[in-house]
Amino acid sequence: MDDPIERAVTAIRFDAEGLVPAIAQQHDTGEVLMMAWMNRDAVRVSLAEGRVCYWSRSRRKLWRKGETSGQVQWLRELRLDCDGDTVLLLVDQRGVACHTGRRNCFFRAWRNQEWAVIAEPQVPPETLYSDETLNGGPSPASEAGRAPATATAGTSAATEPQEPAPSSTDGWG
Amino acid sequence: MDDPIERAVTAIRFDAEGLVPAIAQQHDTGEVLMMAWMNRDAVRVSLAEGRVCYWSRSRRKLWRKGETSGQVQWLRELRLDCDGDTVLLLVDQRGVACHTGRRNCFFRAWRNQEWAVIAEPQVPPETLYSDETLNGGPSPASEAGRAPATATAGTSAATEPQEPAPSSTDGWG
Repeated sequence: MDDPIERAVTAIRFDAEGLVPAIAQQHDTGEVLMMAWMNRDAVRVSLAEGRVCYWSRSRRKLWRKGETSGQVQWLRELRLDCDGDTVLLLVDQRGVACHTGRRNCFFRAWRNQEWAVIAEPQVPPETLYSDETLNGGPSPASEAGRAPATATAGTSAATEPQEPAPSSTDGWG
Repeated sequence: MDDPIERAVTAIRFDAEGLVPAIAQQHDTGEVLMMAWMNRDAVRVSLAEGRVCYWSRSRRKLWRKGETSGQVQWLRELRLDCDGDTVLLLVDQRGVACHTGRRNCFFRAWRNQEWAVIAEPQVPPETLYSDETLNGGPSPASEAGRAPATATAGTSAATEPQEPAPSSTDGWG
């Protein structure tokens, strides 16, 4: 096996569906930004291109983070855990990681026996997925009502922002 | 629903197997320590007891981190991501999180086109799972050859340190 990227991939233990959970952490601050999934090709693309690519389970396709929103994750280092079944991505996050416009996705904290929203959006979420940021001009009517622009902490369970629902035609992030 | 812990649990989107991935991060340094899985009862126990309890997928039982090794994770805060299907545990890790004796499990880094071991054990792993740390005295013969005490980065794929293989009778950590 002469391809170094294949050697990287071989060390990772993908699950029965060919996936591995990937934690994205801002390399310099330590902030945990998000968690998503990678398949073998996503790892290959991430290492080859130097920007993070995930696998969208719902859309069943590669998802280069930032491909629609511009909020790219530059890959600084890929790490692997002791049993090889989780990867930690040290990244340099451009802009915000969360589709809600927040820097990271973990903005709900269990405090005083209730869920508290502990971070506010840094950018209006609608600007992340506006027509201008999508590939190919005006969005089709089917996208007009998609959830992320209006999702809140209380209603987010119905959406899969990091992995768009099959009815969505564009990726988030 | 008057029980606040049940309200916490209800907000979490568990997968088809009733599990949610849980990332453990040291609360003050930001170090990502490990990733494991929780079911509803693991969340309940963690919130009720203030120490992290996971679900061992291989043993199919609750696994209070540190129950055999003493390396307890005190829970400082539980956070939930935007789509509710990943939790972030801010913890105060007593000792080391990794069964190899390292502070965290992500000690392999892809650098210069090869996997580099970037952290050394802080404690000999065999001390984490010695007879003295196990509940109930001398370990049975079946445990004498279990993997973690001799696992290395290069051979760890055969072990499931954070979730012991079904043949193991004791949990790691």
